[in-house]
Amino acid sequence: MSRTTQDWQAADAAHFLHPFTDFDALAKKGSRIIERAENIYLWDSEGHKILDAMSGLWCVNVGYGRQELIDAATAQLKQLPFYNAFFQTATPPAIELAELLSEVTPPQFRHVFFSGSGSEGNDTVVRMVRRYWDVLGQPERKVIISRNNAYHGSTMAGASLGGMSGMHAQGGLPIPDITHIEQPYWYELGRPQGLSRDDFGRLAASWLEKKILEVGPERVAAFIGEPVQGAGGVIIPPATYWPAIQAICDKYGILLVSDEVICGFGRTGRWWGCETMGTRPDLMTFAKGVTSGYIPLGGVMVGERVARVLIEQGGEFNHGYTYSGHPVACAVALANIRLIQRERLVDRVRDDLGPYLAQHFEALKAHPLVGDAETCGLMGAVVLARDKASGTPFASDLEVGMVCRGHCFGNGLIMRAVGDRMIIAPPLVMTRDQIDEMMVLIKRCLDLTWADVKARGWV
Amino acid sequence: MSRTTQDWQAADAAHFLHPFTDFDALAKKGSRIIERAENIYLWDSEGHKILDAMSGLWCVNVGYGRQELIDAATAQLKQLPFYNAFFQTATPPAIELAELLSEVTPPQFRHVFFSGSGSEGNDTVVRMVRRYWDVLGQPERKVIISRNNAYHGSTMAGASLGGMSGMHAQGGLPIPDITHIEQPYWYELGRPQGLSRDDFGRLAASWLEKKILEVGPERVAAFIGEPVQGAGGVIIPPATYWPAIQAICDKYGILLVSDEVICGFGRTGRWWGCETMGTRPDLMTFAKGVTSGYIPLGGVMVGERVARVLIEQGGEFNHGYTYSGHPVACAVALANIRLIQRERLVDRVRDDLGPYLAQHFEALKAHPLVGDAETCGLMGAVVLARDKASGTPFASDLEVGMVCRGHCFGNGLIMRAVGDRMIIAPPLVMTRDQIDEMMVLIKRCLDLTWADVKARGWV
Repeated sequence: MSRTTQDWQAADAAHFLHPFTDFDALAKKGSRIIERAENIYLWDSEGHKILDAMSGLWCVNVGYGRQELIDAATAQLKQLPFYNAFFQTATPPAIELAELLSEVTPPQFRHVFFSGSGSEGNDTVVRMVRRYWDVLGQPERKVIISRNNAYHGSTMAGASLGGMSGMHAQGGLPIPDITHIEQPYWYELGRPQGLSRDDFGRLAASWLEKKILEVGPERVAAFIGEPVQGAGGVIIPPATYWPAIQAICDKYGILLVSDEVICGFGRTGRWWGCETMGTRPDLMTFAKGVTSGYIPLGGVMVGERVARVLIEQGGEFNHGYTYSGHPVACAVALANIRLIQRERLVDRVRDDLGPYLAQHFEALKAHPLVGDAETCGLMGAVVLARDKASGTPFASDLEVGMVCRGHCFGNGLIMRAVGDRMIIAPPLVMTRDQIDEMMVLIKRCLDLTWADVKARGWV
Repeated sequence: MSRTTQDWQAADAAHFLHPFTDFDALAKKGSRIIERAENIYLWDSEGHKILDAMSGLWCVNVGYGRQELIDAATAQLKQLPFYNAFFQTATPPAIELAELLSEVTPPQFRHVFFSGSGSEGNDTVVRMVRRYWDVLGQPERKVIISRNNAYHGSTMAGASLGGMSGMHAQGGLPIPDITHIEQPYWYELGRPQGLSRDDFGRLAASWLEKKILEVGPERVAAFIGEPVQGAGGVIIPPATYWPAIQAICDKYGILLVSDEVICGFGRTGRWWGCETMGTRPDLMTFAKGVTSGYIPLGGVMVGERVARVLIEQGGEFNHGYTYSGHPVACAVALANIRLIQRERLVDRVRDDLGPYLAQHFEALKAHPLVGDAETCGLMGAVVLARDKASGTPFASDLEVGMVCRGHCFGNGLIMRAVGDRMIIAPPLVMTRDQIDEMMVLIKRCLDLTWADVKARGWV
């Protein structure tokens, strides 16, 4: 790269409107330019080496620079860089990937509907869920129940399924017949009431039944949730939560949709988050980890309950995307999944890396700034608290999480701040030594943040 | 490939739910398996060579097998296969592409918002248009006007902007505050009334003003349209239409959105369809041709009128996609656009191939089955009519277009049927000889279809 950082920043500010960004503030500050990557490390245009504890954006599960994925893309680009799957045609990579996905997903899944992203996948879920009930002669079953602080993508339908108030405030959202219940966030909603995690999990699940009765069971089509809320802040529900949710869905016959865009492909120590949490979803959205982000791809796994109705009674399903089943994306996904299988990454997270990370996070609880620390597989969250004993949070306008994130940037670590929850989801290929290295950086950034909040008189 | 066609078809039917498909009917019939491609030709799993007159799906403008695009993808995959543009970071390919796009678009465009597809781009348009008016203190301006038989993608918002009744019938569409006027389709709506093309163009534009007044001008946010409706059937509006639409948008101060997903990147003989049609849009959606489909990418060009408001007064724009500014997609787009520039493909369509195709299509009008034939740049449509003199159509349940498409399949030609409009949009790299070759195939398929309709007593 021959351009200077200043030059990149000027061009960036002049032309590139970044996602989820205050354009003016970023233009004044200047973007950080990420130029290259290898394994779990990034290098910026100033030559700084950075440990990427967020896997790009919950994507690069197999790490950067994997030759198998690069070769798969190159070969498919030469063979057939694009062809559509409309009009009674298919391409070998799309068919092979559909086959392989039905092998690595729970047994109720034998069919896939491809999209280009998780957003498009969740958007498809809305269409598909409503179509299912329509075909069954229950067109009034349109309402989908989701949760506050959920994230299900950024299309109009995806953002409506999501429960992010900042997103709902822009653009006339949510769209009709999507409603939300409170999230299963024990630390904020259960701990202050003195509830045990398990009791709170059952209580949080009961809010679904309450909502179903409020809406009217005959109008409810589905419930959607991430097994662990990712962008919401790695909110790990109590173990009692999802089994109770499953029971309520069963009781009222409503569809259960597991958004596995973040939790899928080994993140939680099983192939799918629903396996870790003990549910049997009817639909599963995926993206990100399916290609480790190397080429955009997403989709929906369609369980037999839904698939049989759509196939046998549905006629034409009037929905799909130009890039549905994109041959290059599918070829890379095939290489990626086979690599995960060959290197036994899922077992490694479950049996080795996950427990090892959990030990480290348990130890973090002793830090004076840390109100709570928890992990699920290879994702984790640390709560920054003003008073760790009582769990009293900092005033949100202090943006302590952003202070901590600044220290991470300055110390060669990518860690994300969701309010005052500092979260990680590092590549599944990392070694124990690299976890140690990451933990040294995390502790350093917590210490620096602690020094800041003390110096500013915030504690 | 070692698998037989039957084997691919069985796996396809067992696992792959195709876009816009009757799954059961396709499973019984069996998909056609497209295995490889070069230049403008495809080969299926039976070894048949097929001339792809639809460029994949309005995508592969530079043809298949272009080494420059393959090399760009491979190099970027090695350098940095993914990084996000959230959280104050950017990557060189995204910045460079943003710069280059502002060079090759009309002067009002200096900023881009990236998405993963045209669907996500049009979905973004809804959020962005409403946010613009909200920031300006006119939150009641939410209504977007589109047209019947429009296609703007398949997310809930995209399909709502679109005017496809079959899509609206599934999934609770359209979403609120999107409304439609009749399309500028002279052959069907103007010709039967004895209107000249120009008079009909002005009439069709006047329907926009009528709708604005009906909705209330203070509630109308934007009008959206493809310069030439692509998936609607290559509906080429009269020359009077778009200038009159522009004047109406100006009169009421509403935003004009040009969906250039199909018309962009040289398809009409100018870089953008809006240049061919003589409008100055405030927003432009793109996808497909931006990478020639090799890697999924889309986005919205944001004109200064909108960009200045969002940047200077908007604060954080709460929208974006994981794959917004995907480095591999952007690197391929850069290579693709530079190739279009180097080979002067846009001028070639305008000065040479477009006029040459137009001559051929003019000659098709003499065919007994052809009610009309028209082109715009390198896209074209042929109307199959029961009575060419009066323009009387076939009964739609005869599906004469599908009969013709069957002959195309059988004769090594990909041509699409939209009702009884047979449409093409071949790669921009084709030679005059290849146009001749394509026209021989088109005529053969028209002859075969004509023989069929006569034999069946449909004429």
